[in-house]
Amino acid sequence: MPAYVRNLWYMAAWEHEVPDGGMLSRKLLDQAWLVHRLESGAYAMLEDRCPHRFVPLSMGRKQGDVVHCRYHGLGFGPDGACVHTPFPASPPGHVKAATMPVVARYRALWFWPGDPALADPSLIPDFAFLDSYRPMTRGHLVMQGNYELVTDNLMDLTHAEFLHVETFGVNGSLFESGAQTVQQEADGAIWNKWTMTDARAPAWAKPVLGEGARVDQKLHMRWHAPASMALLVEIGKAGTAYGVHLLPPMLNPHIITPETQGSSHYFYDHEPTEQARDMAMQVFVEEDEPMIEAAQAALGETDFWDARPAILKTDAAAIRCRRALMQLRRREAGEAEAP
Amino acid sequence: MPAYVRNLWYMAAWEHEVPDGGMLSRKLLDQAWLVHRLESGAYAMLEDRCPHRFVPLSMGRKQGDVVHCRYHGLGFGPDGACVHTPFPASPPGHVKAATMPVVARYRALWFWPGDPALADPSLIPDFAFLDSYRPMTRGHLVMQGNYELVTDNLMDLTHAEFLHVETFGVNGSLFESGAQTVQQEADGAIWNKWTMTDARAPAWAKPVLGEGARVDQKLHMRWHAPASMALLVEIGKAGTAYGVHLLPPMLNPHIITPETQGSSHYFYDHEPTEQARDMAMQVFVEEDEPMIEAAQAALGETDFWDARPAILKTDAAAIRCRRALMQLRRREAGEAEAP
Amino acid sequence: MPAYVRNLWYMAAWEHEVPDGGMLSRKLLDQAWLVHRLESGAYAMLEDRCPHRFVPLSMGRKQGDVVHCRYHGLGFGPDGACVHTPFPASPPGHVKAATMPVVARYRALWFWPGDPALADPSLIPDFAFLDSYRPMTRGHLVMQGNYELVTDNLMDLTHAEFLHVETFGVNGSLFESGAQTVQQEADGAIWNKWTMTDARAPAWAKPVLGEGARVDQKLHMRWHAPASMALLVEIGKAGTAYGVHLLPPMLNPHIITPETQGSSHYFYDHEPTEQARDMAMQVFVEEDEPMIEAAQAALGETDFWDARPAILKTDAAAIRCRRALMQLRRREAGEAEAP
Repeated sequence: MPAYVRNLWYMAAWEHEVPDGGMLSRKLLDQAWLVHRLESGAYAMLEDRCPHRFVPLSMGRKQGDVVHCRYHGLGFGPDGACVHTPFPASPPGHVKAATMPVVARYRALWFWPGDPALADPSLIPDFAFLDSYRPMTRGHLVMQGNYELVTDNLMDLTHAEFLHVETFGVNGSLFESGAQTVQQEADGAIWNKWTMTDARAPAWAKPVLGEGARVDQKLHMRWHAPASMALLVEIGKAGTAYGVHLLPPMLNPHIITPETQGSSHYFYDHEPTEQARDMAMQVFVEEDEPMIEAAQAALGETDFWDARPAILKTDAAAIRCRRALMQLRRREAGEAEAP
Repeated sequence: MPAYVRNLWYMAAWEHEVPDGGMLSRKLLDQAWLVHRLESGAYAMLEDRCPHRFVPLSMGRKQGDVVHCRYHGLGFGPDGACVHTPFPASPPGHVKAATMPVVARYRALWFWPGDPALADPSLIPDFAFLDSYRPMTRGHLVMQGNYELVTDNLMDLTHAEFLHVETFGVNGSLFESGAQTVQQEADGAIWNKWTMTDARAPAWAKPVLGEGARVDQKLHMRWHAPASMALLVEIGKAGTAYGVHLLPPMLNPHIITPETQGSSHYFYDHEPTEQARDMAMQVFVEEDEPMIEAAQAALGETDFWDARPAILKTDAAAIRCRRALMQLRRREAGEAEAP
Repeated sequence: MPAYVRNLWYMAAWEHEVPDGGMLSRKLLDQAWLVHRLESGAYAMLEDRCPHRFVPLSMGRKQGDVVHCRYHGLGFGPDGACVHTPFPASPPGHVKAATMPVVARYRALWFWPGDPALADPSLIPDFAFLDSYRPMTRGHLVMQGNYELVTDNLMDLTHAEFLHVETFGVNGSLFESGAQTVQQEADGAIWNKWTMTDARAPAWAKPVLGEGARVDQKLHMRWHAPASMALLVEIGKAGTAYGVHLLPPMLNPHIITPETQGSSHYFYDHEPTEQARDMAMQVFVEEDEPMIEAAQAALGETDFWDARPAILKTDAAAIRCRRALMQLRRREAGEAEAP
């Protein structure tokens, strides 16, 4: 079975990560790729390895839309064709760098590692909220864990009550009054919705709501294959059907792309304050990452299912995502085998 | 063939290594385990990996006899059963952490990685001398070598004359007048006995015995599978049948437990002085360890026998230990294959 | 197919690298070897691993022509035979360390990892220029790349115009007026000859030749299997048939020996000045090595041909060297299979 679903949009980077006039090199799905911005404003994505002697093209230089290898001077256009050699003769037509379709949308760059003919941008999951005028800081980190272990983490937020007690926990109300609903949508989205009704209010809400007040809360995570997630958080005064919010409703991306089988790119955002940045780092780097890395280290090369994980009710959504990916991989394996 | 004999007692730790109210995590036979002391004073040993999402349970916290996972809050009792979840519902009966029998004896903790029904504590090799009133410092280190390479080192002490010249050597008398006897006992113990009779006295004995005096010496190493060794050292005035000792007879543990196929736990003791500690570190860490690690590095993944080692007469005991282990592994492989 | 051609002379070290009265330990073709100088002035080469318990013999000591293992005191003569044990008995005749033929020539030591009966020193490629009276500094470094990738680098010097612009480049003249000739000689030598005729002079030549003067240049690299190369550089006033040199003609060794499949010994020389040393380090360590290591990292375990490299005209010599080696490996594999 192939390691990755190929006919899918994956996030490669935030647009702002591509340096002006330069190249971004990033390992994606076990291979090194480079992204650069063309003079038209569009983007090109080339395998970051010269087809001649295999050195990273990103060690070279960019001239207009052409990337020149630092080793022997071959130049490659946006479609991967060799368009320049240092000799007066015309460039060798047979030399071509691998490319992938890449599309800028929602302030992010999305690539399609499968059949380019199928790369329909309308299949990119809806992250329109990222286009919002709200000033947000958009970040990227790498976690040393398989992307499905990161998905497990995000699609089962009950861990917040243990790992994120001081940052993101909901004061135990999830266990007291939480109801879990798992939903699947026509476009393949899977939702894990925790809803707390008439729940104990968090301590910080007392000055606003008064002693003994109760709240309604939503903690709704949406997943699209392979691991592009969005989290909706709402907290309102109980019984007002979210008519009286304690905080503005929040929508945040948690978009995961495999770097390798054992490591993942994590794309996130937070309010543009130092405090918000510190809290994001605490949640992602100090709290989640050690768990995910420990699980990865414990599994090593062992397949997740071969390790016979105990399945809990709260895993329902995470397991459904794993099954959906498995089906996609199986389908592609079948198609690949078909004549 | 399995990598380890499973129906045997292995030493996990010194009792004092388990922190009060806490957990000791240690890799043993390629797997991470945790040991903790129960309220009864007995010990429990659980796989240090939550059966739900594989993170180390030792990252969590201990409450009474229950170990709580830091990731999703499951709690596990001494028998590995999940006895707590954060939800009001009763804990999932099917979720169980792996356990091993563990017994405290001779100030050490012994575990049995095989069939628990066979875990008879009377099979723990006799290290009663460790219960002595003598104050000793008991230590632990990890050597980057397979446990059988460490056994080779200990069951052939002729190396002391080269490696430990200034610490543990016997002044060349082993080569001059040493007689080697290899004995096997009914309980599986293998002894390698070097006995020096009427031998040149060590330099430090001259003030006591006078110029030209001669001594009798014993250097007797006892082995039990898998690699639990004890060393008896005696040195007395020649011809007195050890009636006149130059030093009190010494019994010391050299107990080895595989951490992985390429690394070993080494449990030792020494007199509780700084000088004795320094000498132990010199012998173990500066003199033996580089040799054992170099041999391991040279072998790499190659099996010891496939590397066609030259066999010397002085290897007789070490080779007998290797053969005894091989037979035990073969027997377990046969039992495992039987219907 | 075997990884290395065995019936060939490889360079092990410069003679001066073997310490007086001591041993040089070096990994060659995936194995650790030691070289030492005998009392006769000849050299011996033993596997740097005691045949008894596999520790490096180079951790021991040398007494006359005998190397004594530090672990159990066995002593080995120049032919690998065990000629000493610490016991009074005679040494065990069956214990033998592996050896290889080794010959000192051209200030270097050459070893033959194949059948010793075929080790004819007249097959060592001609590096007589190394015996020159010219004082030169001879150096050694290790590059993290397969030796054939280093050969690719050296047998295609067009890269100098990109990588070595400020050190070794020829001012673009190679591309303007360079003619490439690839020649094979009866002894297996392959030459890659770049010749620039009536070419633009380098900037530094203007004070000598005057404004607008032209030069003839040779950049001729000679290869012998496995990867022992020599570079001839000449630059003369155009039209004088090198009768008027701008610099003395230079011959330099670029001799490569595999350390492992993924790393290479590089033996070079330079004028004995600090400036020449700095330039050599810039060319080899700062410019070439990152390219070669990057290519190696990109290939990983993949075979060069399986990675489907694009082949350019300028690769003609490098590819011919690769094919010659492949044929030698195939021939040896065939011989090995024959009855």
